[in-house]
Amino acid sequence: MQVAVIGANGGIGRELVSRLADAGHDPIGVVRDESQFDTVRERGGEPRLGDLEGEFAPALRGADAVVFTAGSGGDTGWDETLLIDLWGARRSIDACVEHGIDRFVIISAYSASEPLAEPEALRPYRVAKRCADDYLERSPLDATILRPTTLTDEAGTGHVSAAFDYRGEDGDAIPRADVAQTVVACLANEETVGETIRLFGGDTPIENAIRPTD
Amino acid sequence: MQVAVIGANGGIGRELVSRLADAGHDPIGVVRDESQFDTVRERGGEPRLGDLEGEFAPALRGADAVVFTAGSGGDTGWDETLLIDLWGARRSIDACVEHGIDRFVIISAYSASEPLAEPEALRPYRVAKRCADDYLERSPLDATILRPTTLTDEAGTGHVSAAFDYRGEDGDAIPRADVAQTVVACLANEETVGETIRLFGGDTPIENAIRPTD
Repeated sequence: MQVAVIGANGGIGRELVSRLADAGHDPIGVVRDESQFDTVRERGGEPRLGDLEGEFAPALRGADAVVFTAGSGGDTGWDETLLIDLWGARRSIDACVEHGIDRFVIISAYSASEPLAEPEALRPYRVAKRCADDYLERSPLDATILRPTTLTDEAGTGHVSAAFDYRGEDGDAIPRADVAQTVVACLANEETVGETIRLFGGDTPIENAIRPTD
Repeated sequence: MQVAVIGANGGIGRELVSRLADAGHDPIGVVRDESQFDTVRERGGEPRLGDLEGEFAPALRGADAVVFTAGSGGDTGWDETLLIDLWGARRSIDACVEHGIDRFVIISAYSASEPLAEPEALRPYRVAKRCADDYLERSPLDATILRPTTLTDEAGTGHVSAAFDYRGEDGDAIPRADVAQTVVACLANEETVGETIRLFGGDTPIENAIRPTD
């Protein structure tokens, strides 16, 4: 299927475009600058311009599913956290609702469940992520919320540890490549619709880890 | 009735405590520092400590209604906008739901209806206010959302211009005292429950201006 990746030039986004192409999907890489087009093409994606603060919805044309992995990153101000991580996510969700794109996966953060937890420095970020997650959860979309813990640039292992409705201790860091592979697995498994899944580094093959255990 | 004012030391909050007392209510002034207690007492309110990032719900004990007018202010960072204007509002709403306090009035901002409008500098602020408003709107509380335009410290006039479901041009600046008086009027008028009201400076007596015209 056609899968639009919002934030296709980010750490998870780049891995995701490659893995979607490998899995036989047609990835659309939504980026905010034409200079990022080659990165998307090299990974097997169709690059499109989309400005989360400007014209944006046309970039999703034809998509069957959307993955939101845009993030303002650690080097920008909290104003960008409000505008990209929160409002950009809401605009993406609204655009999907408006254009009949039903399937939506958001890359959230482990600690979005408890915004005021320690460390204090992460609180504003968690507020933004949590509010975006809640907005998605209340939308009519077929949504999956992924909450990975600390991310690394290590090579993917194809294995993770996943936890549903989990609010316990944090776990091992997880490679961005494994988060990306988890997205691909979620898109192939309807059982993940409506689920919020915490992700850690681990030993379970990804396809098995994301099966809800009722 | 007992009305808890969250942000009782702010510009609108101080005016509101006085006006609630004048109207025969028992205002509770929720502030974050004991040094602000005298300000609340001088205006006829009962001061209580409440930390929107810490222990908070006990400050609302016994309240029949809550008014949220806490704001991080223009001198703080966007991190505080996320933590106070957005998450603090959500925590206040959650606390009311949990403790059976049904009536809630939030002081929002004129431009929260269009977060990406000009001027660009206000966008992150509007995102926070809008998300707080939406959270309140979707809550089970009897809510009124007030969206005043530019605020001044001029003396109150007892007159405003109010607009329901309005997305047109901005209007005249409005004294904080008149916003406070509008809150008092809304608490006395059940017809304002479920309404989002834009407020400008104007010529209509406040009690008349806030009557919805169906």
